[in-house]
Amino acid sequence: MFDFKYYTPTKVIFGKGAEAKTAELIKEFGGSRVLVHYGTGSVIRTGLLKKVTDILDNAGIFYVTLGGAVPNPRLGLVYEGIDLCRREGVDFILAVGGGSAIDSAKAIGYGAANDGDVWDFYENKRKPSGSLPIGVILTIAATGSEMIDSSVITKEDGLLKRGCNSDYCRPKFAIMNPELTMTLPDYQTACGCADIMMHTMERYFTCGGNMEITDSVAEGLLRTVMKNAKILVKEPKNYNARAEVMWAGSLSHNGLTGCGSDGGDWTPHKMEHEIGGLFDVAHGAGLAAVWGSWARYVYKDCLPRFKRFAVNVMGVENKGSDEEIALKGIEAMEAFYREINMPTNLRELGVDATDEQLSEMAKKCAQGVGGETGSAKRLKEADMLAIYKACR
Amino acid sequence: MFDFKYYTPTKVIFGKGAEAKTAELIKEFGGSRVLVHYGTGSVIRTGLLKKVTDILDNAGIFYVTLGGAVPNPRLGLVYEGIDLCRREGVDFILAVGGGSAIDSAKAIGYGAANDGDVWDFYENKRKPSGSLPIGVILTIAATGSEMIDSSVITKEDGLLKRGCNSDYCRPKFAIMNPELTMTLPDYQTACGCADIMMHTMERYFTCGGNMEITDSVAEGLLRTVMKNAKILVKEPKNYNARAEVMWAGSLSHNGLTGCGSDGGDWTPHKMEHEIGGLFDVAHGAGLAAVWGSWARYVYKDCLPRFKRFAVNVMGVENKGSDEEIALKGIEAMEAFYREINMPTNLRELGVDATDEQLSEMAKKCAQGVGGETGSAKRLKEADMLAIYKACR
Repeated sequence: MFDFKYYTPTKVIFGKGAEAKTAELIKEFGGSRVLVHYGTGSVIRTGLLKKVTDILDNAGIFYVTLGGAVPNPRLGLVYEGIDLCRREGVDFILAVGGGSAIDSAKAIGYGAANDGDVWDFYENKRKPSGSLPIGVILTIAATGSEMIDSSVITKEDGLLKRGCNSDYCRPKFAIMNPELTMTLPDYQTACGCADIMMHTMERYFTCGGNMEITDSVAEGLLRTVMKNAKILVKEPKNYNARAEVMWAGSLSHNGLTGCGSDGGDWTPHKMEHEIGGLFDVAHGAGLAAVWGSWARYVYKDCLPRFKRFAVNVMGVENKGSDEEIALKGIEAMEAFYREINMPTNLRELGVDATDEQLSEMAKKCAQGVGGETGSAKRLKEADMLAIYKACR
Repeated sequence: MFDFKYYTPTKVIFGKGAEAKTAELIKEFGGSRVLVHYGTGSVIRTGLLKKVTDILDNAGIFYVTLGGAVPNPRLGLVYEGIDLCRREGVDFILAVGGGSAIDSAKAIGYGAANDGDVWDFYENKRKPSGSLPIGVILTIAATGSEMIDSSVITKEDGLLKRGCNSDYCRPKFAIMNPELTMTLPDYQTACGCADIMMHTMERYFTCGGNMEITDSVAEGLLRTVMKNAKILVKEPKNYNARAEVMWAGSLSHNGLTGCGSDGGDWTPHKMEHEIGGLFDVAHGAGLAAVWGSWARYVYKDCLPRFKRFAVNVMGVENKGSDEEIALKGIEAMEAFYREINMPTNLRELGVDATDEQLSEMAKKCAQGVGGETGSAKRLKEADMLAIYKACR
């Protein structure tokens, strides 16, 4: 096992009507002039935004609003948010929405608290020295952005999708009311479940440094999400299932499921980032589409973990050769994806990519990771291209 | 399931040689004049204290020291610490040790940052409005005090053992080097494992509000501690086993294993507090001594949970009546206690209590909880006395 740091300072308020605590929490963390940042409509349609601004009005908290955060949130809106924060003397950002609004809010927070071009942080040219404090009202269980130290932004010019990690951007609080996720389209709910599971799977499939306690937490989390994702296909308004998935979303990506490991593999995420950058697909669906081909490409190099996954998570009988068991685990995972209406290849994802596009994606992905990446198996550009082709 | 708050802001630095980061972490959290607080000798004998003060010297950080924290830490030393902090303008407390030093440090932190008698907070007469920031170098995996919001102090006059909970006292950082726990006597190691497991079991045995993800985390944690506690009986220097137990100790008591529950039962802890207050036994051993009798007294009122525990944690075959399965689980737990040389009754604990003493303990326990307590089954003074008698 490896040494590790575990740091999850976000105060989570979880349950029905939790958004009623918004003003109190903003004040607790020193906010007095707030930017309310959100997406492209759902929080308006459901009335949540009105409810939140009413709460701020009633508490006498000054605020300005900025909507428009889209999936794979864009740098242009981030610049707009930074200008708005400076102009209005904003000292706290409240993100209302899912990963897009939160990641966008984090980038705005960096930009408003640091001089120079915020994109520098995403290109790893400089490191941020702080951020405006951020609070979250979560409406989509998926990215785990409500507790994690990362944000991912897409630069329109070249559709470059890049991430920045630092503890400064970990939200001060996260309000999680499972009821707020009930209005999500079924497809988005399933995408969220796929994303949540992948955050743990990325940490699980490694060739170095595992802890028994981390593995047992990870396996329990994966089984829980699978069980409840299947319930939500049939009963999208099931509160308990929504709650299980929502809390799993935070635990899956706040570091808990990686303690003691070598940091994880993360190739599926990195390969999906390039699909998302070029085709603007839903992140979770993109992950599901690429995972099976990645797994078949690498499993022989990480056999003990794929076997353990098959038995402990997918319920495969511990019979036959390790390779047979591992492959049955991969097949069972793909069967689960189909059961919750997730794609298992690019075609099912709705992406009709040319050879040139696949080559471009592999090239950009390899560049983005400095040549090679992965823990289950180290992969270079040629490997990535082979996987993209296998999942076409 | 119930609504919940989850707040674990402690920055954990886990691994070999982690104490080297002490000065850096103190500075990160604003400390410049430090009280180094520790116990009664082991950190001196092992050279850890010298190592830590050398680190502070080399970093140019001013400090004063105060040793003497004992198991069931005493109020007198807390007062002494508060005076010392005020006299020396201390702005940060570094606890070096286990739960005793940490709980004592938390009480000193409250006292130094608030006017009036610090014992008021432990008698629930007033609430603290802040605390000096606290950092921890952990040397015993047991109480979970390194991440939790509680501290327990014993007042010499009447041997009253009372707790105070508030987020103010959650440590800013916790340095966890499993190697530092290797010099512990075997008995203390086993006591720690019993205590760690009980923190999760207290949250697990409830008659209201459970989450599947919380249960799966809890069950995985309990299995992990059992497995590694047995390894440590034979191989006390096994680094991986030390690390599994140490990290489980924090996760077991930082709130994670109680998310969505009704808050837990906590009767075994409360009943042990009275044993500890009167006889000064090791906390973990006291818990083990009382648990079986408590479990047999309450299991019929919380049968689904005791059955689930038997099957998912203790590996009891799911065959026979629910009561039979539940009882087999309790027996298996007691067999485990014996395997790691923990007591399963007061006699094995070394406590020869008179009827009068048992009555006094039951009376004080019932008073301390305002008459009755428990979730698996509500218990009053007469029930507590019956359990004390059953475990004599």
